[in-house]
Amino acid sequence: MNKNFARIVGLALALSLPTLAYAETASVAPATETATAESAISHFFLDNGMEVVVIPDHRAPIVTHMVWYKVGGADEAPGKSGIAHFFEHLMFKGTERHPDGELDRVVASLGGSLNATTTSDFTAYYETVPPDALATMMDFEADRMRGLVLTDELVASERQVVLEERNLRIDGNPQAVLGEETAATLFQNHPYRIPVLGWRHEMEQLNRTDALAFYQQYYAPNNAVLVVAGDVDADTVRTLAEASYGKLERGPDLPPRVRPAEPQQNTMRTITLRDPRVSVPSFSRSWVVPSYLSAAPGEAEALDLLAEILGGGNRSRLYQDVVVKTGVAADAGAAYTGATMDPNAFSLYGAPQGDHDLSEVEAAVDAELARLIRDGVTVRELDSAKARFVRSMVFAQDAQSTMANIYGAKLVNGGTIEDITQWPDRIRAVTPEQVQAVAAKYLDPSIAVTSYLLPPANGAQ
Amino acid sequence: MNKNFARIVGLALALSLPTLAYAETASVAPATETATAESAISHFFLDNGMEVVVIPDHRAPIVTHMVWYKVGGADEAPGKSGIAHFFEHLMFKGTERHPDGELDRVVASLGGSLNATTTSDFTAYYETVPPDALATMMDFEADRMRGLVLTDELVASERQVVLEERNLRIDGNPQAVLGEETAATLFQNHPYRIPVLGWRHEMEQLNRTDALAFYQQYYAPNNAVLVVAGDVDADTVRTLAEASYGKLERGPDLPPRVRPAEPQQNTMRTITLRDPRVSVPSFSRSWVVPSYLSAAPGEAEALDLLAEILGGGNRSRLYQDVVVKTGVAADAGAAYTGATMDPNAFSLYGAPQGDHDLSEVEAAVDAELARLIRDGVTVRELDSAKARFVRSMVFAQDAQSTMANIYGAKLVNGGTIEDITQWPDRIRAVTPEQVQAVAAKYLDPSIAVTSYLLPPANGAQ
Repeated sequence: MNKNFARIVGLALALSLPTLAYAETASVAPATETATAESAISHFFLDNGMEVVVIPDHRAPIVTHMVWYKVGGADEAPGKSGIAHFFEHLMFKGTERHPDGELDRVVASLGGSLNATTTSDFTAYYETVPPDALATMMDFEADRMRGLVLTDELVASERQVVLEERNLRIDGNPQAVLGEETAATLFQNHPYRIPVLGWRHEMEQLNRTDALAFYQQYYAPNNAVLVVAGDVDADTVRTLAEASYGKLERGPDLPPRVRPAEPQQNTMRTITLRDPRVSVPSFSRSWVVPSYLSAAPGEAEALDLLAEILGGGNRSRLYQDVVVKTGVAADAGAAYTGATMDPNAFSLYGAPQGDHDLSEVEAAVDAELARLIRDGVTVRELDSAKARFVRSMVFAQDAQSTMANIYGAKLVNGGTIEDITQWPDRIRAVTPEQVQAVAAKYLDPSIAVTSYLLPPANGAQ
Repeated sequence: MNKNFARIVGLALALSLPTLAYAETASVAPATETATAESAISHFFLDNGMEVVVIPDHRAPIVTHMVWYKVGGADEAPGKSGIAHFFEHLMFKGTERHPDGELDRVVASLGGSLNATTTSDFTAYYETVPPDALATMMDFEADRMRGLVLTDELVASERQVVLEERNLRIDGNPQAVLGEETAATLFQNHPYRIPVLGWRHEMEQLNRTDALAFYQQYYAPNNAVLVVAGDVDADTVRTLAEASYGKLERGPDLPPRVRPAEPQQNTMRTITLRDPRVSVPSFSRSWVVPSYLSAAPGEAEALDLLAEILGGGNRSRLYQDVVVKTGVAADAGAAYTGATMDPNAFSLYGAPQGDHDLSEVEAAVDAELARLIRDGVTVRELDSAKARFVRSMVFAQDAQSTMANIYGAKLVNGGTIEDITQWPDRIRAVTPEQVQAVAAKYLDPSIAVTSYLLPPANGAQ
């Protein structure tokens, strides 16, 4: 369901890497449950400022090697939207030592996989390979961190690629178009309002000068986090990292990542897109709420549990009452995008079943929210939601790349390893009153932003 | 009526100077009608890059002395909203040669007046004084262009003044609050979305460092336009300007004023504010359309005439049909904000009469627009609108400060004197087909942005 929301609102959407979408869209921030796993994680810095996290996982002979840069779409200069994601593409274009295509060929020949992703908050590159290829991967990543070779022709041809990506993902998809304009309305000041892929007219103008300026500013060891998870120990990673990344010069210090904050919001807003490709109407209702990294203690955890209880899947109130019991909705739920650096969206959504009107679904969803704000949640449903959350961590540990993602996404956004390891305890400490309080405080109908995706109107307009 | 719209949408609003509001909100760009007046205008540059316009006007022994800087709210860095307007206030704080308050005292003792204004596009300072005080005014303005003295205390206390100004003008006025959030919704990318006064939380952070950086960057003769209108000749102005402004060193070249442009808009949006202080509901419906300085030839002129015919005062279609004939509306009209650098708003608005619903007014206004798009305008009403426009120029010439404003606002935004002098001919050349065409092209209901200012709902929400 979080994925669904991210599609609608189009925020911090993992653009190229389906598995990474988890780190972006799920606000569940699983952590190691056992003391063993927790203490096994190593965290240190190279002399040039590069941060390193090692997550041993010896179940299979693979390693996940990731380099995260502390720059994303929300760090772009005005008028240069899309440069962070465009630059991610350019990073595959080769260096003097490793020409375009060589990294792909090497990883493929090892039976591994590689990809990259750009969100509002970060840009990440990763390879999954056998452990004995780790040094080779570090060599490639360290090399392209400073040694990228870009020509005007290459930049121009890759610009066509990202424009085509925009055609496919956004312009050809009414839900994505609505998502972009919803973000541009929901956020009145914060750059989460601007699409990570970029506005088309600005993407069309991005050039080699922009790319090189971006590269010089952001691609340096002191702006990067290395995450290695897998069948490897910390000492080996340290030795290999010092021999590759460690040889790069520290870049200029970057200023703190201060983003323009939202003003107080005072109005109720709607965004409507009618499109012939839409057959079933739907709506989503959103508010800007604190993220884990920007919230007062306990509020993000309470918002996460609120989303779970109100609309997190088949056991939730919305699903049980509005979909199953009354049959008004074909789908209804809630989502909280809590994993980003800055305050982000909390949303409710729904679509009608059969002959029911969208307005009935909207009224039913509103009524569930109003009931929760009025009467709160029960200890039983809260305990059940907490148990699901804590279980999700155990599952998360099972996927090496997911664990690596969780750590990378947290550190690259300015969080700490403790934010992850202590998360289960903070979830367990949330009270029913706290859940009710965040709902009442943040989900104020008079400042809600509602998106409607509708079939064409009959007749005019 | 343009003033009314500017109040609603809050764009490029003259903040401190009622008479300057004309240059901002009226899209009518009057020009000298006679060859005599036209040829009498002098336009030249000082060696340090300062642009000078002299408009002789010998009807009375006064001169209007204005200095315009090519910087406004839309040029501010992200997170620094309000700095242009805040800096305008700081410009009155005194220099080493002329302490705080001396300029006010001198102008008052001469029986003159002074003020300043900040819009999205420019910042302007002016004095109206007897001609023999012109040299003194130039001395003051040239002195504070580079010699301002700012302390932390002074900046902090003036920050309280602009915060109080925001309280009064925006936060205490539901229409202004709605106007701010309408601009933030109507513009998805362009900085006209950000209030000139600034978002409160950003204003609170503005400090001496921000102010000095802004001063160094923007306050220099090569970023300024001097306009002198009145009982003076060009040679005298040149001599005085060279002796004062001419002694200032040219500042560093400024980059072109490129503002992030709007993406294609695809959605219909609404913004609703309910407030207990509202008794009569009202709405405005807006679109982003080209301004004079950004439009294809003839389109801005056609938009101006469209606004005039559809909703420009008591003779307009909206007023005659929706207010007078059917009595549905207490007020209804149209406005075009065409005088800004970049594309800006075209709006329709209305409020119900007696027991009529706002929805009736909206439907009636929509019907008038649809009729105009379908059937066009008559030659007779177009000729009548043109005549009113051309007449407005004659009236404009009557007020010395208005004429000075028209020239300053045009040149500071990158326009030319010919833009002004040839405007009557361009207005006369507009055809009925062109008026119909811009209405059809730009006023698309599926991407309209509608603001509702409403009394509190009965009962909940």
